[in-house]
Amino acid sequence: MSDLRKDPIVGRWVIIAKNRAKRPNELNDGLLERASGFCPFCEGHETHTPGEIVAYRQAGTPRDAPGWRVRVVPNKFPALEIEGDLNKRGQGLYDLMNGVGAHEVIIESPRHLRSTAELDDATLGDVFWIYRERLLDLKRDTRLLHGMVFKNVGAAAGASLEHIHSQLIVTPIVPISVVEEIEGSHAFYRYRGRCVFCDMIEQELAFEQRIVFDSPGFVAFCPFAARFPFETWIVPTTHASHYETLSRGGADELARVIRRVMQKIEAALDRPAYNYIIHTAPFDTQALDHYHWHIEIIPRVTKTAGFEWGTGFYINPVPPEEAATFMRDLELPAQTAQEITPTATG
Amino acid sequence: MSDLRKDPIVGRWVIIAKNRAKRPNELNDGLLERASGFCPFCEGHETHTPGEIVAYRQAGTPRDAPGWRVRVVPNKFPALEIEGDLNKRGQGLYDLMNGVGAHEVIIESPRHLRSTAELDDATLGDVFWIYRERLLDLKRDTRLLHGMVFKNVGAAAGASLEHIHSQLIVTPIVPISVVEEIEGSHAFYRYRGRCVFCDMIEQELAFEQRIVFDSPGFVAFCPFAARFPFETWIVPTTHASHYETLSRGGADELARVIRRVMQKIEAALDRPAYNYIIHTAPFDTQALDHYHWHIEIIPRVTKTAGFEWGTGFYINPVPPEEAATFMRDLELPAQTAQEITPTATG
Repeated sequence: MSDLRKDPIVGRWVIIAKNRAKRPNELNDGLLERASGFCPFCEGHETHTPGEIVAYRQAGTPRDAPGWRVRVVPNKFPALEIEGDLNKRGQGLYDLMNGVGAHEVIIESPRHLRSTAELDDATLGDVFWIYRERLLDLKRDTRLLHGMVFKNVGAAAGASLEHIHSQLIVTPIVPISVVEEIEGSHAFYRYRGRCVFCDMIEQELAFEQRIVFDSPGFVAFCPFAARFPFETWIVPTTHASHYETLSRGGADELARVIRRVMQKIEAALDRPAYNYIIHTAPFDTQALDHYHWHIEIIPRVTKTAGFEWGTGFYINPVPPEEAATFMRDLELPAQTAQEITPTATG
Repeated sequence: MSDLRKDPIVGRWVIIAKNRAKRPNELNDGLLERASGFCPFCEGHETHTPGEIVAYRQAGTPRDAPGWRVRVVPNKFPALEIEGDLNKRGQGLYDLMNGVGAHEVIIESPRHLRSTAELDDATLGDVFWIYRERLLDLKRDTRLLHGMVFKNVGAAAGASLEHIHSQLIVTPIVPISVVEEIEGSHAFYRYRGRCVFCDMIEQELAFEQRIVFDSPGFVAFCPFAARFPFETWIVPTTHASHYETLSRGGADELARVIRRVMQKIEAALDRPAYNYIIHTAPFDTQALDHYHWHIEIIPRVTKTAGFEWGTGFYINPVPPEEAATFMRDLELPAQTAQEITPTATG
């Protein structure tokens, strides 16, 4: 089992994986299965993944067999494991606990697609709905405090498998970035009495120049202090702190918005590597007036260098107003996702 | 001139570069000059960089001409510019100011070397001494609050030029990572009455397993909560909050320690890309009892994925005890740096 260790200076937690000891020159192996000719996520290859936790599938088809649209399985090389005791303890100055948690993979299509831009709206609605289902299930485990859904597309974004998927890591502590967002938005709320995200939505819609796309339920914009070129946030227009309060209709609308945004990003940057991350409140908090769940999309077209690691200070060569204008002005083909040919076959 | 913009939620500052607008597919160009057959940093090519700010050179040789050992020049494509007014202002919810600051390049050898491991101890002592000289000079400018010295080696670490160099970015605000370290170590000091770094040194020296190398003045160890495989910190054994308090003897000793550590990292990981960053207290603080300057060395052998960006939570597949043991046990060749052949010629 891995360790969860806390940095004693800034309070950042790190997962120190064990039982993976290998020679240094093999460091990049074994974290995830590598892309190769054979794809364990394609339909028909269900026995090459750990057994499914849940799937949306044709009535009457059995588990771990074809007939599914979206399928959730445990990560074959989990960073955290669901069995065991936290055993919180100290070592002199330091704090640590056992690496208890969940690490699941959401396989978003039986077809060997690559990116969210290639999915059809209905399946993508299922994906956002199944995220909610997994979060609701895992938050019943009182050892666990926070769930982070994220997607890595392309090797430069940390992906090791090409087939369209996202991941869920559920941790027994609240990650430091989430703590910082919640404390920061709480400070704003104490001072102004309003949610900083609600204020941002209002200002962005009035200003218009950083808007990429909007619908009644969601606004997609390039943030004022974007760290990365074409960084785009999707924020629900109705205040909610927890992603799992999303309705089925909301999941479908979110699917339409994010797919449109991803099509624009892919057209602008020629199918870049990217990450998206769902930022949501911890499991053990009630609905918060000061925090607002949202999705951050990060195209990975610039390298992160020493300056960024040292300072948490980013240099972004593309002003967000220019990125948003470029994307707003892009004409997308009328073609629908259903007509898009898969990029490869498994 | 670029903008300095603040994220209204977490207080992170970002440099939004302007006058660099280009088509999205040219994004990676222009940030730094690209490596090519011609190296502007090699001896004899002095007129291909902006004019030197300072150099340690043979008596009697003129500026911007051969004869130097270490040379500091303005970055040709600076993220921040030294001229102008900060003009701090608001835009509704948001805060911003002009991108005033300094962005310098320290060219560490007239020869086309690549890494700190290849330098000789005397020149490397000059490098650490010239960092101090530049920080002392720039902190006299009361608009500027913090100086960050960092090094990028290899494309995966964000370097665009191969020739051995480091950079100094001096900012009119204190970067968020520095604020977090200072606040975190202050909290520890209020609770325990001691410096957390001094306590760490004591515990690491007693525990031994995470020590890579030590000398009377410096301890190099893999931190308990290392984010990256073979991450190594070098901490001075005598408490000091500001790097610029380093003595000339300290600079020479630091040079010997870091070169030994880098030789071990390069032998262990087969010359990886890496960053090092000097963490030091802001210009406008007096000597702090609770903060302790240090250097963090980060080999870049794993990819940062969506999980890390979303959570500030890292997955490290190599326990720091194993990395440190591996490096302690490595026998370095008796060969000195002076005997190492340059990896390429400019």
